[in-house]
Amino acid sequence: MFTDLRRILFGDPLPTASETEQRLTKIKALAVFSSDALSSVAYATEEILLVLVLAGTGYLYLSIPIALAIAALAIIVAISYYQTVHGYPSGGGAYVVAEENLGKWPGLIAAAALLNDYVLTVAVSMTAGIAAITSAFPSLFSYRVELCVLGVVLITWANLRGVKESGTIFAIPTYCFIIILLALIAVGVFRLTTGSLSPDAGQLAVFTENDAEPLTLFLLMRAFASGCTALTGIEAVSNGVPAFKKPEARNAGITLIAMAVLLTTTFLGTTFLANVLQVIPSENETVVSQIGRYVFDGGLPYLFLQFATSFILVLAANTSFNGFPRLAAILAQARYLPNQLTSLGDRLAFNNGIFALAVSSVALIVIFGGDTHRLIPLYAVGVFLSFTLSQAGMVRHWQKERGNNWQWKAAINSLGAAATGIVMLVILAAKFIHGAWIVALLIPLFVWIFHTIKHYYALVARQLSLEGLEPEAWDDVDPQARHKIVVPVSGMHRGSLAALHFARVMSADVTAVMVDVEPERTARVREKWQVWGHGVPLVVLESPYRSVIQPLLAYLEEADQREPERGLAVVVLPEFVPPHWWNHLFHNQTAILFKAILTYQRGKTGKGRVVINVPYHLERR
Amino acid sequence: MFTDLRRILFGDPLPTASETEQRLTKIKALAVFSSDALSSVAYATEEILLVLVLAGTGYLYLSIPIALAIAALAIIVAISYYQTVHGYPSGGGAYVVAEENLGKWPGLIAAAALLNDYVLTVAVSMTAGIAAITSAFPSLFSYRVELCVLGVVLITWANLRGVKESGTIFAIPTYCFIIILLALIAVGVFRLTTGSLSPDAGQLAVFTENDAEPLTLFLLMRAFASGCTALTGIEAVSNGVPAFKKPEARNAGITLIAMAVLLTTTFLGTTFLANVLQVIPSENETVVSQIGRYVFDGGLPYLFLQFATSFILVLAANTSFNGFPRLAAILAQARYLPNQLTSLGDRLAFNNGIFALAVSSVALIVIFGGDTHRLIPLYAVGVFLSFTLSQAGMVRHWQKERGNNWQWKAAINSLGAAATGIVMLVILAAKFIHGAWIVALLIPLFVWIFHTIKHYYALVARQLSLEGLEPEAWDDVDPQARHKIVVPVSGMHRGSLAALHFARVMSADVTAVMVDVEPERTARVREKWQVWGHGVPLVVLESPYRSVIQPLLAYLEEADQREPERGLAVVVLPEFVPPHWWNHLFHNQTAILFKAILTYQRGKTGKGRVVINVPYHLERR
Repeated sequence: MFTDLRRILFGDPLPTASETEQRLTKIKALAVFSSDALSSVAYATEEILLVLVLAGTGYLYLSIPIALAIAALAIIVAISYYQTVHGYPSGGGAYVVAEENLGKWPGLIAAAALLNDYVLTVAVSMTAGIAAITSAFPSLFSYRVELCVLGVVLITWANLRGVKESGTIFAIPTYCFIIILLALIAVGVFRLTTGSLSPDAGQLAVFTENDAEPLTLFLLMRAFASGCTALTGIEAVSNGVPAFKKPEARNAGITLIAMAVLLTTTFLGTTFLANVLQVIPSENETVVSQIGRYVFDGGLPYLFLQFATSFILVLAANTSFNGFPRLAAILAQARYLPNQLTSLGDRLAFNNGIFALAVSSVALIVIFGGDTHRLIPLYAVGVFLSFTLSQAGMVRHWQKERGNNWQWKAAINSLGAAATGIVMLVILAAKFIHGAWIVALLIPLFVWIFHTIKHYYALVARQLSLEGLEPEAWDDVDPQARHKIVVPVSGMHRGSLAALHFARVMSADVTAVMVDVEPERTARVREKWQVWGHGVPLVVLESPYRSVIQPLLAYLEEADQREPERGLAVVVLPEFVPPHWWNHLFHNQTAILFKAILTYQRGKTGKGRVVINVPYHLERR
Repeated sequence: MFTDLRRILFGDPLPTASETEQRLTKIKALAVFSSDALSSVAYATEEILLVLVLAGTGYLYLSIPIALAIAALAIIVAISYYQTVHGYPSGGGAYVVAEENLGKWPGLIAAAALLNDYVLTVAVSMTAGIAAITSAFPSLFSYRVELCVLGVVLITWANLRGVKESGTIFAIPTYCFIIILLALIAVGVFRLTTGSLSPDAGQLAVFTENDAEPLTLFLLMRAFASGCTALTGIEAVSNGVPAFKKPEARNAGITLIAMAVLLTTTFLGTTFLANVLQVIPSENETVVSQIGRYVFDGGLPYLFLQFATSFILVLAANTSFNGFPRLAAILAQARYLPNQLTSLGDRLAFNNGIFALAVSSVALIVIFGGDTHRLIPLYAVGVFLSFTLSQAGMVRHWQKERGNNWQWKAAINSLGAAATGIVMLVILAAKFIHGAWIVALLIPLFVWIFHTIKHYYALVARQLSLEGLEPEAWDDVDPQARHKIVVPVSGMHRGSLAALHFARVMSADVTAVMVDVEPERTARVREKWQVWGHGVPLVVLESPYRSVIQPLLAYLEEADQREPERGLAVVVLPEFVPPHWWNHLFHNQTAILFKAILTYQRGKTGKGRVVINVPYHLERR
């Protein structure tokens, strides 16, 4: 039944052999890999305005030069990554590039930054996507956390079905968003030039300038830092080069350029419109929603805009669901994360990584109350840290490779590394007290965890290695060397008889032991033993303090020490398997405690004590 | 270290042989067994007044006739129980008396009623005890739930140390309470007669008569029913006869009479003073506290009264900690409750019963917000139900025994049974909607649970019984009949080598199986197998869908079916024991799931599949 349900939800299992077929065309790849970058247009302008407005509505116009600076930065980063795509056709994620070219630690720092940002991408995109919906339907505002969680669950489900189908599911909404956003800008500019649309002067008056902060350089830095979230996701294509159809690098490069052009156009366009229309950010309605309402006069195109924005943001989260599990699998393969993250599920998706991402992003959403604006300060630090490490790695890559025009390529990546490095420091400084400190703690913590796990696996591998051992001959196992077996019993019944028989088949050296807690019971067992003991000796242990476990442990220790060369005695325990799980309440739990204690006892050279449960099944009636 | 801590907290373990020495003198027994009954004086008067006041302060004087009726009832019940003590010198709890004389079902109903009331005694006494403290120190009022829980924890601790010491700990406060309460009444009466104490007229004016209910017969019944809580605990002596020094019955009888005299005197005295002083019950101060403040003018004697009241109430809870675990052990012995309740702990106390009582009473206290008044409607129904069944049982007892004056004795118990039976119906009717319905549901539920557990144990005993089996000869275990063993491996290392060796020693019929998930890994293992396989065949299973468990299950089923007469194949699993428990996170949990599935597989006639974990311990470094 469980299997049937799984098939209905997630589809039939796919054989391993079909893995390589799951490739994306450029059209689908643009949808899958660019939704993160493009969707940030939905909130980047708003975040700039939210900072500037602190100094008063009179300074909102400064969003234009800030947006231009960010657009310039986007172009530099895109060109930098275009080179990465061609330099690393096998997939040039920041971790791989930094690790290969700069060494282990920069690689791990990049990996930690990326994992953090994948989680934040899900949280920020989902909250912003739901904000687009609640802007159009204010009555849903109080359910925004629940809606966000529902969104994550749906995305998780789609990804557990496997990557190819997600490509199909996600292509349409991404293109809808691109079209409606370009339409918004075109209609807006057209109506402005024809004079059919005028700034809403009423809006500006709402805001009183009395409690404004002074316009400082620091405030400008914060506005710039907040706007830099527009660049998040621009690297997605370079991580996913192998997912493209052949020729992978060429197709990925073209996709990257298309994405960068769309990103800068739409970002600048919305920032321009927000300025001309004198939009003021509010808690209950997004900036894009306000622009849409003015430009489309709140009609059907407005609703289409809101849904398309919401959809692309929900799908932006999907970029992380592609990236996070892949990166986690790469790190696990290198022994920096638990091994379970490398295993492919029924549908060829990295299920464990998908679950880990879903759980952590839901946690973030709940902790930050589903509020995009509160999550933003945590975002972007990690992104720009990984940009910097990745670009710096590319510089080293060209230096080592020394192909055609390597100096030129290295210079471009140097420019990218320098620009993103400086921006990273600006973001960290400007947003530190607003939340960036959390990321500044988490990234070193992750690096430490990677290191610890690697160390642990190395330790295990060293101890398990057969090196230094000589194979011994086992063919002539001496009957005398058979296991020494102790069977603790509390009565003589079918369960203990089964255990006794199992032990007797294993070895001739079997002793049954019973702890004398109730003298009458002990007498009864002694009597039955005459008939049912089959010659196995029964040792009765005194227990003046009524403990069952202590005398058994003492007996085992003595038995072990009598013949130390034979190793620890094997314990065979009768075990009832009751018909219902809650029937366990009616059975003594001493055996479980006893077994737990025995499991931690050790013999020589790593060999532990073997405890064998011989199950006896009880029927329902 | 854990053992040391346990000894400091609970004392050295006591040997079973010292059990009979733990007997109580009359002086100590009065403290241990009468604290429940006597302490109810602290709240019984108040509960009567709380009902009467609903009809207006003008009717509070009716508490005097009600208290007289309750005192008369107390005398009838005490005489009835005096006969039980002599009729059942081995301990005449309501369960034993009802079960022996009236049959299984009345016995179980009495047992269910008693268990319920033991829990309620703890909850009511503890909340009332803390109310005495918060009356004197109103600033503690908001911490009353926490204080109640702390009280239960301390009582639990004292009882885990064993019964003799609890006798010593509890004797002093009980006598302090008796003395101060008698002093309160004496001083009160003396000051009233000398005219140095006058009713506080200001008090009465506080209450407006406008919103009063009419004085109905039903309201009088409720007042009477609430006051009947004064009788709770009067049966404690009869349950505990064997705990007395010899001659047990005589000593217990004297103790019972002393208790009844003290109970009626103090209850009537406080009710009289409450009337004369025109005390009105309030949420924040108890009636006894108000009386004490007037009589003692709030001096040191007043504080002494409050602390003594609080202490005896806290100790009243102790009566349940004596009774509940004993009754639970008796029921468990008769297979009506889980077997674990019969086992004596290190200090000869029934630890599991003590824990069960502590947990359920804490739950009640928390659910009812530590408010005595809200708990009272649940109380007393069960008490009077068990009184009735016990007295009815005694009537039957005298009829069967037909000793000297048996008709006379039967008549007394008949009167007791009739009186308590009628009162029980009055209480149930009067308090039904205020909470008695909960008890009316719980008692049948408990009876059903008793029945189900008994049925389950009978089922297990029948299935485990050796009856119908013929002993077979095992002495010549055929080497060919040795276990068929399957060792699933995922690699060739010291852990799998240890498992393989263990299996090879057990039997010559060993097959290793490996699921081919990663072809390179499989190739590596095949290669190592040449050197380390020791001739054990290695079977590689295909797994096109990457599942590890499915192919193994299929292989086992096939192996079982090939030679059905040999039973299910035994599975030997290599298991790592990592140095820290959290290291398990870094290991695949497939083995645990696999083992869980296998444990539920069955062979013929109750024999299950044996799964053997061969542990290999990993070092810290």
